[in-house]
Amino acid sequence: MVNQVQRVDGSWQTCKSDSSGASNSGGESSKESSRCSTPLLDADRSDRLREKMRKRMESGDPWFSLEFFPPRTAGGAVNLISRFDRMGSGGPLFIDITWHPSGDPGSDKETSSMMIASTAVNYCGLESVLHLTCCNQSQEKITGYLAKAKQLGLKNIMALRGDPLGTDWEDEEEGFNYATDLVKHIRSEFDDYFDICVAGYPTGHPEAQSYEDDLKHLKEKVDAGADFIITQLFFRADTFLKFLRDCRAIGITCPILPGVFPIQGYQSLRQLVKLSKLEVPDEIMQVIEPIKDNDAAIRSYGIHQAVEMCRVLLDSGEVPGLHFYTLNREVATTEVLRQLGLWIEDPRRPLPWAVSANPKRKVEDVRPIFWASRPKSYIYRTQDWDDFPNGRWGNSSSPAFGELNDYYLFYLKSKSSKDALLKMWGEELTSEASVFEVFTSYITAQANRSGHKVMCLPWNDDALATETNLLKDELEKVNRRGVLTINSQPNINGKPSSDPIAGWGPAGGYVFQKAYLEFFTSSENVTALLKVLKKYEPRVNYHIVNVQGHNLTNAQDMQPNAVTWGIFPGREIVQPTVVDPVSFMYWKDEAFALWIEQWAKLYEDESPSRMIIKYIHDNYFLVNLVDNDFPLDSCLWQVLDDMFELLDAPPEPVGDGAVSE
Amino acid sequence: MVNQVQRVDGSWQTCKSDSSGASNSGGESSKESSRCSTPLLDADRSDRLREKMRKRMESGDPWFSLEFFPPRTAGGAVNLISRFDRMGSGGPLFIDITWHPSGDPGSDKETSSMMIASTAVNYCGLESVLHLTCCNQSQEKITGYLAKAKQLGLKNIMALRGDPLGTDWEDEEEGFNYATDLVKHIRSEFDDYFDICVAGYPTGHPEAQSYEDDLKHLKEKVDAGADFIITQLFFRADTFLKFLRDCRAIGITCPILPGVFPIQGYQSLRQLVKLSKLEVPDEIMQVIEPIKDNDAAIRSYGIHQAVEMCRVLLDSGEVPGLHFYTLNREVATTEVLRQLGLWIEDPRRPLPWAVSANPKRKVEDVRPIFWASRPKSYIYRTQDWDDFPNGRWGNSSSPAFGELNDYYLFYLKSKSSKDALLKMWGEELTSEASVFEVFTSYITAQANRSGHKVMCLPWNDDALATETNLLKDELEKVNRRGVLTINSQPNINGKPSSDPIAGWGPAGGYVFQKAYLEFFTSSENVTALLKVLKKYEPRVNYHIVNVQGHNLTNAQDMQPNAVTWGIFPGREIVQPTVVDPVSFMYWKDEAFALWIEQWAKLYEDESPSRMIIKYIHDNYFLVNLVDNDFPLDSCLWQVLDDMFELLDAPPEPVGDGAVSE
Repeated sequence: MVNQVQRVDGSWQTCKSDSSGASNSGGESSKESSRCSTPLLDADRSDRLREKMRKRMESGDPWFSLEFFPPRTAGGAVNLISRFDRMGSGGPLFIDITWHPSGDPGSDKETSSMMIASTAVNYCGLESVLHLTCCNQSQEKITGYLAKAKQLGLKNIMALRGDPLGTDWEDEEEGFNYATDLVKHIRSEFDDYFDICVAGYPTGHPEAQSYEDDLKHLKEKVDAGADFIITQLFFRADTFLKFLRDCRAIGITCPILPGVFPIQGYQSLRQLVKLSKLEVPDEIMQVIEPIKDNDAAIRSYGIHQAVEMCRVLLDSGEVPGLHFYTLNREVATTEVLRQLGLWIEDPRRPLPWAVSANPKRKVEDVRPIFWASRPKSYIYRTQDWDDFPNGRWGNSSSPAFGELNDYYLFYLKSKSSKDALLKMWGEELTSEASVFEVFTSYITAQANRSGHKVMCLPWNDDALATETNLLKDELEKVNRRGVLTINSQPNINGKPSSDPIAGWGPAGGYVFQKAYLEFFTSSENVTALLKVLKKYEPRVNYHIVNVQGHNLTNAQDMQPNAVTWGIFPGREIVQPTVVDPVSFMYWKDEAFALWIEQWAKLYEDESPSRMIIKYIHDNYFLVNLVDNDFPLDSCLWQVLDDMFELLDAPPEPVGDGAVSE
Repeated sequence: MVNQVQRVDGSWQTCKSDSSGASNSGGESSKESSRCSTPLLDADRSDRLREKMRKRMESGDPWFSLEFFPPRTAGGAVNLISRFDRMGSGGPLFIDITWHPSGDPGSDKETSSMMIASTAVNYCGLESVLHLTCCNQSQEKITGYLAKAKQLGLKNIMALRGDPLGTDWEDEEEGFNYATDLVKHIRSEFDDYFDICVAGYPTGHPEAQSYEDDLKHLKEKVDAGADFIITQLFFRADTFLKFLRDCRAIGITCPILPGVFPIQGYQSLRQLVKLSKLEVPDEIMQVIEPIKDNDAAIRSYGIHQAVEMCRVLLDSGEVPGLHFYTLNREVATTEVLRQLGLWIEDPRRPLPWAVSANPKRKVEDVRPIFWASRPKSYIYRTQDWDDFPNGRWGNSSSPAFGELNDYYLFYLKSKSSKDALLKMWGEELTSEASVFEVFTSYITAQANRSGHKVMCLPWNDDALATETNLLKDELEKVNRRGVLTINSQPNINGKPSSDPIAGWGPAGGYVFQKAYLEFFTSSENVTALLKVLKKYEPRVNYHIVNVQGHNLTNAQDMQPNAVTWGIFPGREIVQPTVVDPVSFMYWKDEAFALWIEQWAKLYEDESPSRMIIKYIHDNYFLVNLVDNDFPLDSCLWQVLDDMFELLDAPPEPVGDGAVSE
């Protein structure tokens, strides 16, 4: 790869400082000023959707995308967002969220199209397309929806006419009659901000005068400013390929993505066909009718049929990507993608933590380690920041975190029900030791005394991370003795960036970590720990704080400590995770609150169980330890061993008063 | 070390974003906003002088400082600045530059007090105090000097009355009559910007009515706003210690630094004594008179006498630091300091390159590697930048470098004379091969064919760095074959920050490097090199450019590549050196110009020697190579071996046209 580079005189000097540190905001292309802003580790984070498509087409790398509809209940929203996380890991180029005018789709309700799309972008890091229908809507209303979408960080709109409500619908002079009007409106009001998708109908729109007439309408939509087309579902590859050729023939040049519908059940097929006024081909009906009461058989056939059809589409060389109507289900679509080899089994992580797709966060590449298991909470609490730490945490501006009062939004709740939590964390607690047992069961993934596996803790909504599993034996040992661990990472001294467990970032690099351990423990333990830590200066940095904010640390000048970093070919150093003394104080509010909000409140007021959790909340300390000597074996276990040894020693005055106020 | 940290609520949140990335400018204390600016690796760089003194006194760590006077000639200035570099490495807390009203001290001349002090601060990285005398000066003139000093990055003033010019001096109503007036003026015009030093007279000022009266004047100077006192020289420790006690008795509490004068010769002693109207004690005269024609003996006695006196002063426990009147000489003062154990033999480097002491550069911690051997040139060419790269090079704003037209300031010239250069680089060159020999002799530190050691090259004004010495054998081999190396570093995979050769930064850390090699070589070699480099993608990054700016690179998106970095306890990552594609184009202008300006111009116009250098300037390429795989043995020597092998292969068409335009 040899690049010719322009002469330096003049042209480079025009690239002036903007002195803000942050690069340009919004979804505008940053090409002009790429030298002045900090280079991104992952160009994908700055490219807009149509640019990503262009690059994938150029490199002949087919993609897939996934369509979802908004859920009806808050519980459904929690489930759907978990599904986003799971299906997002397979590597869709984008997802899209449908719009149902009767369901208050633009509201702030947790189930609205707008909020679901916003969650997908901001919290799940997914490039997302929000559907928008325009019929029976005023221009003001539509502009309001678009402004809100932009404000939330959404960058792509699927512009649709939508079905008229009722039958008395007529063309309006002032309103929107066709999707073309909506495309024009978006371009006129928001210039080039949004990437716009429009719908294509391989067999013609049911209301169109003719197939040819419908093609003409599609051409108008594209000419008005649409960037790509997704088609209505169809059942034969030929149907799409003919449509594609017809589009090209009349001068439609943008990407056209086939809408694929894996048949998942007899009823859902019938319903969809009725709604979309499509006919199911005989050869399919003949297979399905005999097995219509056997869901498994139908799904199995659906997968087979979709895979066969997709293979023909991809083999044609004219289909850059496949769009899947998931019906909010995982299994069928995932299986089709696996069989096609499009599902990414081991996705490369651009950074150790899941990035957000909100354009204003595209330069973000440093976060405090404390929220490692609660990234959505971190994103939520920093959503109002004007710019995001980039390069160094110290460069970051305001360390002001959002308050906890808005905290109980659906996506910050535990995924488990109260019943499930009680089974895991104990119907009845008898002592602090029963709390130690819960932590130990979580670490060991063994059943607790009532026979239930502890799959989550208030600070960890998922099972133990693979990486943490490496520390399992040591973690089990200390949790049994009341060192209640909630976050940890092993030290790593230069593993390849391709390492399946610890790796992240571009190929050919090396990743590093300092050993980290964070836990709650009693003030008696802390008194002994502080004595022990004197032996480990300056190797070990610590922060120790209780719920009142009484804080003990040996951090120099309150500086952050980088605990994860990577060295890559032709790049500056990337240090995505730090232990920051200032944000630790915000994290401790959240960490202590979770004892009460998620755990204590499971029990009756004044009940012994509740009082035990309350006692821990009021009296324990939150401790974090960093072993700075990353090339050596971590000494943090030795620190805790020394602490236990001191505690086990024959009674003599060990306290030095450091902890008592 | 256990620090109590304040509660987070409220107080931290008041630390708002200034979004500029850079911290506050000027010399103002940055304490209020230290959380918002990027933490400094070395707190010393942000502390003002009086703060440094306070910390050293608190930790009972005595310091020394050095006084110099401005030189009379440009050649003297070059020598003095080399002396600053050498004596600076011993670790003075500050140096000071005297002010001679008759010598145009505030001008832009390279020999003025103002410019010498500015050079010491900006280019030698020395905390410096500029003397300023006020008698017979208008307020406007003085304000002008102070404003200029501030603008140049000077932060400390020694406020003096100065000797009246002629004998007809009388008190002026409007002017300055005493140093006190000057102190008041500085505080009134520049608030707290400057740290102010005033002079103390252990035996009373010669013009004072009495010793007591003089002490009263000194108290007035301190009360007017002086931060510390340096005394006139004296010959007995008791003289100073009595003075010190008398000062404390009347309420002078600031640091009082004894002025130490190691006797260096009979004449200089007599002259100084006459000027300062001091009496040399009998016990000293009795030793000196008999040996007055034996300079070595006098100097030896002077060292002995000074060491004895300084020991008494330090042992008193009342002297925080010693101030030395060097008379611009090195040996005596250095020897006294060595014997006292105050000279730092192996100074810790805060960064791999020498930092500037200009307050506007205090956050700077990233530079391109190209200027590694020419740091003063880099500082000069970036002196107009508004802010400096900090954390990442990519965050840096304008990459516009100063032009080369102002380039031949004294401190950028070769330290060697034309004669010396001709002896080293050849009275007469006969071919490109004779140039190869010069480079080889420089690398091997062997005499060239005319028997002279090559101690410098246009790109390296000093002998080979200790670190580069590690690469000597390989460098010799390739230079012999016309790979003319001008900059290189070995790879380092985590050596302790205390390593005597490669180490830098705070204790307890680890430093890393990617192997780097930069050289001039012919276009034939480059053609072969480019073929070879294809085998080393993406392990090796390269930039190859000729004097016309024809540039070949495989750098991704013109991103900088960090090639030196360090990991320290409780810190963010520091990456002080990068290979930056953009600034490489500015460096190449300078690197090519040095062929002509320093080498070709040694020879007659049109002479064969000059034409050979001119040919190289016009036709060679400047190449830099980075081996990204720092944990492995460097592959850069193998790359060059492969290139030579290809060149040595039986003739067949090897060019692929990549280099020919």
